[in-house]
Amino acid sequence: MKLTIVGCHSASPRFDANPTAQILEVKGHLFLIDCGEGTQVQLRKFKIKFARIKHIFISHLHGDHFFGLVGLISTFKLLGRDAPLHIYGPKGIKQAILLQLKLGKTYTNFELYFHELESNKPTLLFEDAILSITTIPLKHRVYTNGFLFQQKPGERILNIQKATQLGIDSSYYQKAKQGFDVPDSQENIVSNTAITFDPAPAKSYAYCSDTAYCEQIIPQISNTTLLYHEATFLHQHAQLALKTMHSTAHQAALIAHKAKVGKLLLGHYSGRYSDYNEFKLQAQEVFTPTELAMDGKIFEI
Amino acid sequence: MKLTIVGCHSASPRFDANPTAQILEVKGHLFLIDCGEGTQVQLRKFKIKFARIKHIFISHLHGDHFFGLVGLISTFKLLGRDAPLHIYGPKGIKQAILLQLKLGKTYTNFELYFHELESNKPTLLFEDAILSITTIPLKHRVYTNGFLFQQKPGERILNIQKATQLGIDSSYYQKAKQGFDVPDSQENIVSNTAITFDPAPAKSYAYCSDTAYCEQIIPQISNTTLLYHEATFLHQHAQLALKTMHSTAHQAALIAHKAKVGKLLLGHYSGRYSDYNEFKLQAQEVFTPTELAMDGKIFEI
Repeated sequence: MKLTIVGCHSASPRFDANPTAQILEVKGHLFLIDCGEGTQVQLRKFKIKFARIKHIFISHLHGDHFFGLVGLISTFKLLGRDAPLHIYGPKGIKQAILLQLKLGKTYTNFELYFHELESNKPTLLFEDAILSITTIPLKHRVYTNGFLFQQKPGERILNIQKATQLGIDSSYYQKAKQGFDVPDSQENIVSNTAITFDPAPAKSYAYCSDTAYCEQIIPQISNTTLLYHEATFLHQHAQLALKTMHSTAHQAALIAHKAKVGKLLLGHYSGRYSDYNEFKLQAQEVFTPTELAMDGKIFEI
Repeated sequence: MKLTIVGCHSASPRFDANPTAQILEVKGHLFLIDCGEGTQVQLRKFKIKFARIKHIFISHLHGDHFFGLVGLISTFKLLGRDAPLHIYGPKGIKQAILLQLKLGKTYTNFELYFHELESNKPTLLFEDAILSITTIPLKHRVYTNGFLFQQKPGERILNIQKATQLGIDSSYYQKAKQGFDVPDSQENIVSNTAITFDPAPAKSYAYCSDTAYCEQIIPQISNTTLLYHEATFLHQHAQLALKTMHSTAHQAALIAHKAKVGKLLLGHYSGRYSDYNEFKLQAQEVFTPTELAMDGKIFEI
């Protein structure tokens, strides 16, 4: 998995501070998560082949996560896209987008599917042989979901030395990798675990923005490889976080710690701060493997 | 009048090519004309004190003229604006903006007035002691208006030498500047034209975008000090201009020539061109005083 931070700032877009958008690349899939104003310009700047995006996930309908979507769809139309586009987001998103397209008599020449969300329980949005994508219900001023991207375990790894030693015919190797027991040269059944190793652990990415401190998400995101958790405020503004239903860096780190995730990524910084390193320092008091999202930065998961 | 080109490109926003938006400053007024995606970022970049904008004019509901409006309004709210805001644009604009604000539970703490337009005749939108603003009905794929900003003539200029010579009491000077006849020292009435000069000619600015070639606008914009006329295409793509209801540089120049305007400003260039100077050259074959709009360029009218 490869995560590109397209924008990681809260509220109004500024010249050097783009609102939220991320690209997650998973074995050929290119998923767009949130789409603040100006996202399409940033996608071009970071040379992302955005025609390849087939699925867009919108966490909630605040402008800094959503106002760039209608422009991106219009650009897809101008570029002559014909691949279908799936949009997952809160109820109301379909009406807002279609109304604007209709007012401009902009009819897309590709199929546009809206998957409107209303549930407050984790909901499976997408699944194929490679990964599954599930909502993470969050707590914010409007209906909001995070998204959990879970890769499926790969094939088991063949212990070729052991397989040869037991005289297993190579025509059985693929079945063995798939986890089946297979016969040896004497037609005795060999247990799969005797000739294969566990696959590399499946990677996962949890995106949690925007949200107040919310321990309810911990079971769902526990042991996630990478957690992006919003940290709009520093600890000295914890009251403001409470009032606006956002989190502090300290709170994001508490969630990461309790969920035992591999790494924490902070973002959604309020415009009142200029030194972002303080976010990292405050989080690291609780959870050491913390990093800062920055526009244009890439994280390999 | 001072005109700042905030963005002057058509279709999709790109890193160095912003969609349409202009700021017209007229004696303390700050008018925003069109508002493509990213306009608020450009306004900050050009250090325009955009909290002073009280009136926004939207020509039509294509994204490159309109998708930045909802974000700008949201930012006004975040900045704690309390001055009322007037928005003039095609019918439907109110629903599109209010729906998006409502979905984000973003209620402005200032008064937001929508003036929805439907008429195909020139309509007076605004008038005060300084200027009037009237729609210019244009021809495009959707309902579209340009806007004509006409300054009112200033006071007449007192011929102070002549007034002294005739012994006119200084308490009559203001009346004379206002165009009245006034008495001399002998109580004889002196004709106003004998003691005043004509005021400086009133300036005017006509904004015409987007539009097909449309001679119907000529009477309304004749003798305008500055005409901004879209020129999406070069002459070699005249067929494309016809099909998409846009203009070529040559056609914009024809309109400028026939309307005897003072100066022509071209913009709304298609993304297919990289050398904009060709627009100027093609226009100047018909109308010499032609200039090119460029993002960030300022024109004094």
